[in-house]
Amino acid sequence: MKIEKYSKDKEYSYTLGAFPTYELVKHKAQFVEKIIIHSKLKISKDVEKFLTTCESKNIPVVQDDKTINKLADKENCFIIGIFKKYKTTQKLNRKIVLVNPMDMGNLGTIMRTALGFGFKDIILVKPCADIFNPKTIRASMGAVFSLNFQEFENVNDYLSSSNNQKFIFRLTASKTLGSFKTPKENFDLVFGNESSGLPKDFNSIDNGVIIKHSKEIDSLNLPISVGIALYEFTK
Amino acid sequence: MKIEKYSKDKEYSYTLGAFPTYELVKHKAQFVEKIIIHSKLKISKDVEKFLTTCESKNIPVVQDDKTINKLADKENCFIIGIFKKYKTTQKLNRKIVLVNPMDMGNLGTIMRTALGFGFKDIILVKPCADIFNPKTIRASMGAVFSLNFQEFENVNDYLSSSNNQKFIFRLTASKTLGSFKTPKENFDLVFGNESSGLPKDFNSIDNGVIIKHSKEIDSLNLPISVGIALYEFTK
Repeated sequence: MKIEKYSKDKEYSYTLGAFPTYELVKHKAQFVEKIIIHSKLKISKDVEKFLTTCESKNIPVVQDDKTINKLADKENCFIIGIFKKYKTTQKLNRKIVLVNPMDMGNLGTIMRTALGFGFKDIILVKPCADIFNPKTIRASMGAVFSLNFQEFENVNDYLSSSNNQKFIFRLTASKTLGSFKTPKENFDLVFGNESSGLPKDFNSIDNGVIIKHSKEIDSLNLPISVGIALYEFTK
Repeated sequence: MKIEKYSKDKEYSYTLGAFPTYELVKHKAQFVEKIIIHSKLKISKDVEKFLTTCESKNIPVVQDDKTINKLADKENCFIIGIFKKYKTTQKLNRKIVLVNPMDMGNLGTIMRTALGFGFKDIILVKPCADIFNPKTIRASMGAVFSLNFQEFENVNDYLSSSNNQKFIFRLTASKTLGSFKTPKENFDLVFGNESSGLPKDFNSIDNGVIIKHSKEIDSLNLPISVGIALYEFTK
């Protein structure tokens, strides 16, 4: 297997750095091809424990500075995990729906926040950022490996797939977050693109919600909006 | 005046792109040295309005592709504002206190969120990211120009300066955000560094608050925590 710079159409992706690589091995060991370590890696107790885990799970560990230098864009990256991309199935009845999220850093931050509030199912409507891009994985701090994803080609495919009550977060809504009782199950929280918001397909769904903010900004940024919504829906 | 790449010790900084430059001219015109535009700038209605504003405020506008190419790290930057860095004074009695925030993107996002929830006063305890670095400014979407800042050399200097009730956001707290009545005025919301949290100096202050999250993540990220706290304190 030749290891190349990541691109979306490749079968494999990789984790850059110790933290996401630990999460990969912890949650998705069956998809790990191998672990690459750098000769400069300091063998701390955490690293030792990690290497023992790899051994017990039959995951090969190789030292290969050249490949790390090729794949890592930051200097302090001494552990990389190579894994085969996989599919997951949705499990719970409360979902986060991201329509056209384009920023990998935002998507990763949302993943980490979702896991923090016990939302394990993420729906993505295309076009959208790549969940398995190493930048998304790093921004998620490895949370990606504890979540389930489902991608839809367009809004209509998503809408016809879900009977859940939908809470559409948009600036034109009249209902304010915090002013109504939130359900515990069977709901979707729907958020639009970072710049353009939600497409018109959602106009006919009247369950719009707004997070009130001052007129001095155009909007809250996407991960902040999602974080506040998840906080309120799990209080 | 020779225009060079930004560094913290320089007297001048700059805004990259239309949005933060508009905010600069709107809120801090008195500190603007000049506006630089690129020959490729399309004169839309917004741009026209902006140029009229510059004229009415006696701000020189020059076309200078070479300088833009030197200062901008992204391709689609056609407007830059050069301004003299300035000091502000705190005005309100509810403050956000950031102890050693080191990431410029985070700091900018927090600024934008702060403005969104009507928190106009930010206290920074050094070492900390530079509020006037063009990257911070861009992440703030120009919100930096509507906020007041005060920097302290260390935690003790801050503590001895403020008699406000302090809410210390930390993972070891027992009091949960949302479980108590929040005051409307005279309080500080205190947040620690992205990785290391808060220094020991805060241990003796018992007003710790935690934003409850699952054990599957170590912590929420800093801007998300601040966003959720501001939401709850302004509900």
